Formats: sequence, structure tokens, C-alpha cells
Amino acid sequence: MENRDIRLKEIRGFHVGGALHKLSGFKGEAVARAAGDTPTTMDMNGDHMVGQMYATHYRQAEPRFGLPIMLWHGGGLTGACWEDTPAGGPGWLDYFLRDGFDVVVSDAFERGRASWPPYPQFLGQEPEHRSLNVVWHHFRFGARGTYPPILDAQTARQMAYPGLQFSIENLEQFGRQFVPRWTCTEDLTIAAYGALLKKIGPCVVIGHSQGGYYALQCARLFPELVRAVVAVEPPAAPVAANAPGTHVPHLFVWGDYIHGKSETWSRYFRAVEDYRQVLGDSGTPVEVMELPEQGIRGNSHMLIMDQNNQLIVKRVRDWLIEHVRA
Amino acid sequence: MENRDIRLKEIRGFHVGGALHKLSGFKGEAVARAAGDTPTTMDMNGDHMVGQMYATHYRQAEPRFGLPIMLWHGGGLTGACWEDTPAGGPGWLDYFLRDGFDVVVSDAFERGRASWPPYPQFLGQEPEHRSLNVVWHHFRFGARGTYPPILDAQTARQMAYPGLQFSIENLEQFGRQFVPRWTCTEDLTIAAYGALLKKIGPCVVIGHSQGGYYALQCARLFPELVRAVVAVEPPAAPVAANAPGTHVPHLFVWGDYIHGKSETWSRYFRAVEDYRQVLGDSGTPVEVMELPEQGIRGNSHMLIMDQNNQLIVKRVRDWLIEHVRA
Repeated sequence: MENRDIRLKEIRGFHVGGALHKLSGFKGEAVARAAGDTPTTMDMNGDHMVGQMYATHYRQAEPRFGLPIMLWHGGGLTGACWEDTPAGGPGWLDYFLRDGFDVVVSDAFERGRASWPPYPQFLGQEPEHRSLNVVWHHFRFGARGTYPPILDAQTARQMAYPGLQFSIENLEQFGRQFVPRWTCTEDLTIAAYGALLKKIGPCVVIGHSQGGYYALQCARLFPELVRAVVAVEPPAAPVAANAPGTHVPHLFVWGDYIHGKSETWSRYFRAVEDYRQVLGDSGTPVEVMELPEQGIRGNSHMLIMDQNNQLIVKRVRDWLIEHVRA
Repeated sequence: MENRDIRLKEIRGFHVGGALHKLSGFKGEAVARAAGDTPTTMDMNGDHMVGQMYATHYRQAEPRFGLPIMLWHGGGLTGACWEDTPAGGPGWLDYFLRDGFDVVVSDAFERGRASWPPYPQFLGQEPEHRSLNVVWHHFRFGARGTYPPILDAQTARQMAYPGLQFSIENLEQFGRQFVPRWTCTEDLTIAAYGALLKKIGPCVVIGHSQGGYYALQCARLFPELVRAVVAVEPPAAPVAANAPGTHVPHLFVWGDYIHGKSETWSRYFRAVEDYRQVLGDSGTPVEVMELPEQGIRGNSHMLIMDQNNQLIVKRVRDWLIEHVRA
């Protein structure tokens, strides 16, 4: 498939959602507007758009599937996480485009091109930015406490889990993708995803990590628009008692090194399984794809960009073709 | 041309540049990592990548031109500014892709998907975010002091310059594109652009506003890689005494409402004209395209997304075909 050209009717990036806010009482410091210019204080008070998000819509010349696929990134990342791997290989976007799917790749509110409001009064707390040290065990590249003392390729590979599919030799390259994130923006983020869904119309949502959580929430909140959900390692699920509200097909995808390896991810897994149970009990078609159970071992939390990511996305694509009426 | 499909060999998003920094002594506040989770303080100390930038590389199945075109955005914006107009029409990216050019659209350091370091010790000052009020006159949608009291379509059009080509009815939509920016990051930004140029190889750089300034700088700093420059309304130019260092073709593009209308832009224009003079005196092929002199009136600073942007990009494209050996 790598040799098949990508034939598109249109590629269109755009922003959607958010609202006008009036800033007042803000006093900045004097800075130069352009090289060589005299420093001046910019008056930032006035009208600003806050809460919007960004998306790129790829429309096929001849779509093979009746619904576009949305790709929603996880926390601390942007839509770029679907576009390549740390080793420079193709991501899930490449697969779906070559296979003839319409695709929408987005940056959630306050991440990437979506922008963020640099006024303390809007978000009320400071953002965080994951260090590679934390990512090492939280994304299950290696056990806690094994972050390599030197970040060269050989040392990183030695300290990582044996058989790890993540290209740990290129950990720094992965680190270039991280953006600051706030953890208090769920309502604004869901409102922006809602605006995106309304603009694009009925679709399939594939969400990774925090994006998987938002996919589950939006399937409940916008049942007429989200026609199927693929939640790749969501760290949380909607409150189970509220589960009914959608009956579209759900697929949950999990990598390796969870059970008996990561206390945090075992806890996340159980919470999401509880939700999956309630969904299934209410008649919603649900499927769980635990990759190790299918003989696919070595996948980190970043399985969408692991070295075998094309094999995994093909299984997701096959599930879509089989279970989703487009 | 709008009906011609886009046929690509590959679309690849990636990050490039920057370096590993070790953060220490940072103490954050306790926040919840995922919905329903107990708030914890994340230890942000450790290894972080800082200074990188983001780009998407569109490679044609059958390129019509031997050099890729880089599209560099201006201050307070991201690569998204090339992707649509506030009215939802095609941007310059659409034109070049349909016309068969390889294109690289990027987000400079600390803008959009490039990420920014949320630690005061790295950048040393606060970012700024332009209000629509400031943009109104600074981007030459209307005279200073005429920002509409109500932002409805009719009032905005009444207050704007007569004949304005910018879709002022959609000013809020344009406002969704703004990102915070720092004004102290020139060295890191140029270093990242240098890394991008080295990765992509010889190319044509089209830069808008601040991106036009960076294009002029990078043409001097990386003369073997930048084979032509199109500077669209750059607000500044390199120090004229240093001008020689590149002899590749330069095109300068300017919109309307500058002379006799905007003191700021008249000053920017004169500074850039001084540089253009030195370039020309040193034997560099230079051309200035003042749109009103060609009978194209009503263009704002955002001429790349004005309603007649497809007409303007065609002139730029014709200049490239005529003057640049690819």
C-alpha cells in the first residue's frame, strides 16, 4: 500500500468553536514588535477568540467509505502524533489516506494550532509539560526507575522493556512533539469537539489516550454524529451509570506491559472495562482488542506510532469495515 | 483549477530542530491527570526538548517544479494561515498543491504544533496575543480608531476601508487563528528554520510578514539552500550593510492602504526598500510587486487570505516559473 498515491479532492485546514472574550485590565511588558524596532507595550486588552480548535480535513477524490474518520490526539500531544513515527515512518494518517478514507486530523483546544489564551484569568492554573523521564514509564517504554542515565540509542534500548515496539532510539524525536497542556479544560475541549462534529457531520472517531476518553464522551453527547468509536488506550471513561445514550459500535485497543507491569494503566484499564461492561449490557456492540492476546507483543502506550503501527491500524480498519455501516 | 484533484506521493508531518534541556528546581501545583483521578503534582523536572519546529511536507506524485516551496507564517499565526480564508475559501497551499508543486507548510518555534516551553527560565518574558482591536488597524482592515463597536458583519464592513478585499464579515473566524507569541525568540527560530532547510534541501521560501523577514535572513544564512525568496509584506529586513551573501531572486509583495494610510507600514516598507536597494546594487535579481500599481486594490496585510488571494498567488507562481531555475 505504501506505493499507492494519495488522490484528494481537497485538503482544508480550519478553526472551529470557541467564543469572543473581552480582555480588560491586562498590563503587559514592553517588547520589540519586529527586529530593530523600539520596544513598546502592546495593549492586549480587547476582543479575543478563546476555546476554538484546529482541524485538517482530507477529502478523497474517490472515497472508499461513506464516513470520514476523525483522529483525536492524546494529552500533551497534537494531531502531529498521527502523521509520522519517531523513526520517520508513516503514521495512521498515511494508512487511512492511502486506503481511500476521508480523514480529519485535529488539535484540541489549547494544544498546537488550536491556540491557548495567555491570560491567567481564563484558565486559572499553569500548564504542565511532560518530561521524557516521566513519559518513559508512564507511556510504558520501560519500568519505573529505569530511565537511561544517558540518552544514546544503545543505552535507551538496553534499559527499555525487551521487545519494545516503540522506536526508543528516537526518544528525543518523540519529545519534540510534546506541547504544554492544561488539566482543567475538559468542558471547553468537549464544546470545541462538538463544534467540529457539527461542522463535519456523521463520522467515526478514533481517539488515542485522552482523545479516546473524549471520543467516548462525545459518542454519548452527540449520538447522531458519532457513528462508531475506536478508543485507543483511554485513561478514563464516562461515569458508567450514564453509559446508555449511544448504541454505536465501540472498539477498545490496548497494548502490552499493562497487566502486572503498570499499576497506573491497570487501574485505567479496569475503569474503562467497567464502562465497556455497562455499554455491552445496554446492547451496544463492543469489542476489546488486547494486542498481546492476538499475539502482537511489545506495544507501548504510543502504539499508534510504534514500529508495527501499520499492522495495528489495518486491524482497526478491518474492524471498521466489518462493523460500521457507512 | 479548483476542480483539479491533488495527487500526492506522500504527506508527512514531522518535527525538526531544538535541543535537549534539563529542567530542575521546578515545582508545579497539584492537578488531576485524567477525569476523576486524584490530583497529584507532576514532577516536570528532567529532560525536555526545546526549540524545535513543526512542518508538513506534501510531495507530489508528479511534481511540475524541481524545488519544493516553503510557506512560512507571520507573527501570532501558524501554518494554518496558508490553508483557508476566513470565508472558508482556498488558501495559497491549495493553489500550489493543485498546480503540482511540492510544498512544506510549517509552524515556527513556540507557535502551533512546534510547541513552547512553559518554564519562565527558558524564554524570560511573557508572550503576547493580539486583540482583534489591534489587528483591525495593524493589519490594515480599517483606519486606527474605527474598530467596530459591534462585531456584526454589516457594521464591520461599514467601518472597514472601502473596497477592502479581506473578508471582514468573518473577522472572528480569523481571530481563531491567533496564537500567543514571544518577541525574544529570533535566534532559536532561525536555528530551527535552518534545521528545516537542511532536512528538506534546496527550496523556494515564501514568507508572510514576520515569516518574510525570516525568509530574508535565512536566504543570507543558508545561501546554498534558499534558491529564491518571496517576502510578502515583511515588517523588517536584515541590516543592509550585510546584504550580500545571497544572490538568488527576491520578490517583495505589498498590498494596499500603506502609503499615506499607515505610518507603521510606511516605515516598514521604507526599511525593506532600503534592503532591496542594497540587494539590487550587489547584483541580486530583485522585483517589487506593489499590488495597487498593478491595478489590484483593496488588499490588507493578510493578502494571502484576502478574497482575491488566488489571483495574487498566481502572479507569485508566474514570477517563480519565470525567474527561478528549478
